[in-house]
Amino acid sequence: MPGVCASSKGGTINISTLLAAEREAFNVYLADRLHRFDELSEPFRQACCYSLALDGKRIRPILALWAGDLAGAPRERVLPIALALECIHTASLIHDDLPAMDDDVERRGKPTNHVVFGEANAILAGDALIVEPFALLADPLPGLDPRQQLRILKELAETIGPRGLLDGQAMDLNVRPEDYHQTYLETMHHKKTGLLIRCSLLLGALAGDLEEDGLVGLARYGEGIGLAFQIRDDLLDWPEEGDKLTFPALYGPDRAKALAEHCLEDALAALDRFGERASRLKALAHYLNARTH
Amino acid sequence: MPGVCASSKGGTINISTLLAAEREAFNVYLADRLHRFDELSEPFRQACCYSLALDGKRIRPILALWAGDLAGAPRERVLPIALALECIHTASLIHDDLPAMDDDVERRGKPTNHVVFGEANAILAGDALIVEPFALLADPLPGLDPRQQLRILKELAETIGPRGLLDGQAMDLNVRPEDYHQTYLETMHHKKTGLLIRCSLLLGALAGDLEEDGLVGLARYGEGIGLAFQIRDDLLDWPEEGDKLTFPALYGPDRAKALAEHCLEDALAALDRFGERASRLKALAHYLNARTH
Repeated sequence: MPGVCASSKGGTINISTLLAAEREAFNVYLADRLHRFDELSEPFRQACCYSLALDGKRIRPILALWAGDLAGAPRERVLPIALALECIHTASLIHDDLPAMDDDVERRGKPTNHVVFGEANAILAGDALIVEPFALLADPLPGLDPRQQLRILKELAETIGPRGLLDGQAMDLNVRPEDYHQTYLETMHHKKTGLLIRCSLLLGALAGDLEEDGLVGLARYGEGIGLAFQIRDDLLDWPEEGDKLTFPALYGPDRAKALAEHCLEDALAALDRFGERASRLKALAHYLNARTH
Repeated sequence: MPGVCASSKGGTINISTLLAAEREAFNVYLADRLHRFDELSEPFRQACCYSLALDGKRIRPILALWAGDLAGAPRERVLPIALALECIHTASLIHDDLPAMDDDVERRGKPTNHVVFGEANAILAGDALIVEPFALLADPLPGLDPRQQLRILKELAETIGPRGLLDGQAMDLNVRPEDYHQTYLETMHHKKTGLLIRCSLLLGALAGDLEEDGLVGLARYGEGIGLAFQIRDDLLDWPEEGDKLTFPALYGPDRAKALAEHCLEDALAALDRFGERASRLKALAHYLNARTH
């Protein structure tokens, strides 16, 4: 049963229930913070709110919140970080879905942003959700040292900027036949998916107090689950998308599955230092690895 | 002669020569900092560098540098700010030029970004130049207090985000017949053009040491030249673009000219407190107001 995992105490954690509760709490916070867009002109305001308010898994905010818990950060300090991460993720989806990019008309079960508001408003709404995180995180975060806050902003900007997430999207976009090899594929997914997951954990932890070794452990966990998640994603679409550069296309489905298992094991091992304090994160790794859609 | 203005000493400042020298120095700095993009995948790397390296007027960087001089900020602290502002300005041009927005094929005498690299790369390059300023300004700026740095980041994010520049672009995009009135037009231009010019001055000054009254003066100067600049822009295109919402379309050319003069006077008056230390900024205001292309 993927939703129920052994905790280190020998009891069980119902991870689906935990995730649903966190998602619910985050959605309440998010709905309240949409007031930040109240003064915007129409329909730009709606375009900014629409994709953000759609029912998403909220994995990145939850990773930040749980890493924050591990580092002893108060929730009111981590929630703006969680929101910032969801804004970025949403922005990347809005721009990815554009006709000039993946040309997707549906997302999270609803018409994509540009289908509802037109391409131009979707471009601007994506831009808005790229900038808003920096407005959120340049505001004082209660009780946090300004130097630490600058570190958070720097980590975010490097993660989502031209050397990070955007280069991953560009690699995906501009891939050529001679790029069909392991290094290209892993770098692309690391940048496109892994970095933001890693960053979610780091930012949550940086809002609290965690020694550098602990940050390294969280980063390794994030990279592991990010890659495992991506391989599972590829496997779900395979062999329908057999001509795309994916893990099963490159390695065959069995080796791809084995690689996902290896990434998962590595992610779990990186949490050993935290003992049972990391049981939710461990359960989440199993949960993500077992998903079937 | 628009290029030559009386300084407060009774001598003259050749503003064209001054601007050319600043532009040259800034371009040297910019060319060196393009190495930040070295590790990017192709052709995304080229798309990021292309529009930034095109020959622009560099007005925003120069405003930041001169405001920094007024506030006693060392140049090595203001140059990253100047670059950040030019990145943002360039990003807004790249996205504005897209087929879904203004659909412009030429800019600064060269083919626009999407014409050279395709729409998808142009979207990503614009995104990159929106994020890169935050990476630049979250890095330590030599000798600057972290609290002041957070204030700079906050000011930038509010200026270019959904409540600022992006809302101005959205207002331009989504204008309806019932919006053809003074409030809409002035708000749109204030957000679309004025805010970033104002921000350029504020950020330069915040890198140094200036009392709040001085900051208010610089902000008023920025808003004044921003609006005057926009009215002049409208007048240059008028009456060819007579059906667009512009100052001459709304007021007629004579009243529009008078309004530009009024904005200029207000901008100059806001600098009085600085005496001759602001003579370059005053000369720049006259220069921008007198331009014929």
